[in-house]
Amino acid sequence: MSQFEKSLEKYAELAVKSGVNIVSGQTLQINAPIGAAEFVRKVVRFAYEAGAKNVNIDWNDDVITRTKYELAPEEVFGEFPGWKVTAMEELAENGGAVLSVISPNPELLKGIDPKRIATFNKTASKALHNYREYMMADRIRWSIVAIPCVEWAEKVYPNEPIDKAMELLWDSVFKICRVDNENPVEAWVKHNDFLQEKVVQLNDKRYKTLHYTAPGTDLKLDLVDNHVWKGGGANSEDGKWFNPNIPTEEVFSMPHSHGVNGTVKATLPLNYGGNLIENFSLTFKDGKVVDFTAEKGYDTLQHLLDTDEGARRLGEVALVPHDSPISNTGLIFFNTLYDENASCHLALGKAYPNNMKDGEKLPSEEQEKLGINQSLTHVDFMIGSAELNIDGIKEDGTVEPIMRNGNWAF
Amino acid sequence: MSQFEKSLEKYAELAVKSGVNIVSGQTLQINAPIGAAEFVRKVVRFAYEAGAKNVNIDWNDDVITRTKYELAPEEVFGEFPGWKVTAMEELAENGGAVLSVISPNPELLKGIDPKRIATFNKTASKALHNYREYMMADRIRWSIVAIPCVEWAEKVYPNEPIDKAMELLWDSVFKICRVDNENPVEAWVKHNDFLQEKVVQLNDKRYKTLHYTAPGTDLKLDLVDNHVWKGGGANSEDGKWFNPNIPTEEVFSMPHSHGVNGTVKATLPLNYGGNLIENFSLTFKDGKVVDFTAEKGYDTLQHLLDTDEGARRLGEVALVPHDSPISNTGLIFFNTLYDENASCHLALGKAYPNNMKDGEKLPSEEQEKLGINQSLTHVDFMIGSAELNIDGIKEDGTVEPIMRNGNWAF
Repeated sequence: MSQFEKSLEKYAELAVKSGVNIVSGQTLQINAPIGAAEFVRKVVRFAYEAGAKNVNIDWNDDVITRTKYELAPEEVFGEFPGWKVTAMEELAENGGAVLSVISPNPELLKGIDPKRIATFNKTASKALHNYREYMMADRIRWSIVAIPCVEWAEKVYPNEPIDKAMELLWDSVFKICRVDNENPVEAWVKHNDFLQEKVVQLNDKRYKTLHYTAPGTDLKLDLVDNHVWKGGGANSEDGKWFNPNIPTEEVFSMPHSHGVNGTVKATLPLNYGGNLIENFSLTFKDGKVVDFTAEKGYDTLQHLLDTDEGARRLGEVALVPHDSPISNTGLIFFNTLYDENASCHLALGKAYPNNMKDGEKLPSEEQEKLGINQSLTHVDFMIGSAELNIDGIKEDGTVEPIMRNGNWAF
Repeated sequence: MSQFEKSLEKYAELAVKSGVNIVSGQTLQINAPIGAAEFVRKVVRFAYEAGAKNVNIDWNDDVITRTKYELAPEEVFGEFPGWKVTAMEELAENGGAVLSVISPNPELLKGIDPKRIATFNKTASKALHNYREYMMADRIRWSIVAIPCVEWAEKVYPNEPIDKAMELLWDSVFKICRVDNENPVEAWVKHNDFLQEKVVQLNDKRYKTLHYTAPGTDLKLDLVDNHVWKGGGANSEDGKWFNPNIPTEEVFSMPHSHGVNGTVKATLPLNYGGNLIENFSLTFKDGKVVDFTAEKGYDTLQHLLDTDEGARRLGEVALVPHDSPISNTGLIFFNTLYDENASCHLALGKAYPNNMKDGEKLPSEEQEKLGINQSLTHVDFMIGSAELNIDGIKEDGTVEPIMRNGNWAF
């Protein structure tokens, strides 16, 4: 077995054991591009060896996705097959796990009418609403991992010949995901412990407000009452640990959907459904985006914000030190799974309800009253840099530094 | 565009236009192996250009299929997802078309417990019973095409290096499917006309019984009353022409499920669900297989015959001259879609109800009484050779030669 194949094997094992943590009798649903077949085949084998009852794969293909956006009639983007909804809901009800393998081509949908994309994203989100409730409340175990493809490698290493670019991207992926460790599954246990330390510290602080300052940024963000900081893995409803994101470097909590004021400038491009939005800023008043700018992808950003009322409000606040493994590569990955873990970020759209104590037990209307943002969408955007300072403000007005020059101040 | 790509393009166009004959507003479901992606991408483009509303693809992967048979727990082979049944039934009800792309590895499931395979085939057939009714009565438009893969090429050309074997198999496929014509779609119109001539002649004859003789074969097979010979394409319920099989060289009709007596020897190996059955013979009494032999794959044949009562009776009789394009290649393809069109054949299992006049309008119990075989399965096996003679026997006892030395006698 070549060194590459050994690493791919360890990566697949990590996805099954640390990612979705498959247990005996469980069904695993894998969503994956056909180009990731070599990896997926290994995942399937590890899943059955871990006792999976069944592994279903919902394959996709970028070329065909693009052809559909180019040629299909308008009406089809407003439809979503009922049987697919049933399939996902039944899987969740029966305690199945979901592994999403992505192989992101950052410019897949370049030039496609953003309205088509926005319509379809909204349609799919609406249709899969119940399933997403399961997922975002961590009731089931789910995970996302990324696999290099030529288009992604070209975008990350534009000056390298393509073979070299692919090799470099694979190396980066293996390193960032700790697959280069002798035992990646153990390395992830340690990594989770490290993130839990920060989580405990932040939860003890009970900050009322975070104050962000950086070039182009001056933002005051209220956390919800009874907010919970989380990081790394989580426990699913049946008490089994899993890691929703591979990699992950963030600790995150919940902004109050009506308690954000000021302007924030994105520091990395945002890949939204195959289109890039670059050099953009958002201005909030009482939690709502009331103004925005974008040097590139303005229309795409507009469509994202117009998804629904909640798409103009925040659902997540996440802290990542500037001195972190992904950030230290000095690379822009043009993909949220990687870039969000290199940088402090915020998310427009739906909040993770269990970022509030017992939030997942409340009905949506109650959640909304308490500032838990409701939306069909959830899109992270990056705001971290070496120039970012964050202060924590307590109920009694005390101000404490949380981050200075992009790194932890405590 | 290379010559190969041009041919692949024409092949994809043929599948869309002559195969499923996509019309405006129609949904196309494609079942395909991930290795056939290059072809499928072209099919998708032609389908949208022909006005398809949507194209869904249900991808499969041989490696993962085999892993499942090797490692999944027994129980899973007795289950079939309800949502998949719903998906196929809804597609049929709404007038969708189905294109099955196969890329057959003749030894995919070699060594796998035949009981697992038989159980799953039976489970899937039961679950998809309603959908199959649509398909076998030609109520929807459906088609099967084949795409070379390395394992298939190795089996057909065992003495060639693999690159050469692939090249030869592609050439054969293009030639046999008339893709080497300037305009394959037109060539298929002519080909259908030719098969229709034979169909008209045979329908005029009103034979009561066919008598097969060849080395190891002496079989008398009664046709059902009001039998209908068919060949080449067919009309779907909405009156649009389509070709269920690409290639096709056969004319076929319906044996009486209780009217077959004697012994028939297979002349080609049968690939059943990834396992080969070789040099086998079946002995019938009053329509039912009462004895059988097989040099290889005896257990697989046993499981096939044990699927249900109807799996031991015939559902199709098909005539193909020994001097036909596929037969003339002198190759064994180890795949039914190709081998059945090189050779006279019979099928165990379910009959196509519209091989009897208005048969598709009768309820199953009525069909059964009239000799229309009912079964969960339908498996063709080949009995043609240069030594096969077939006589037609009329109601009044007149005997006429239909085939001599494997070729048409009229």
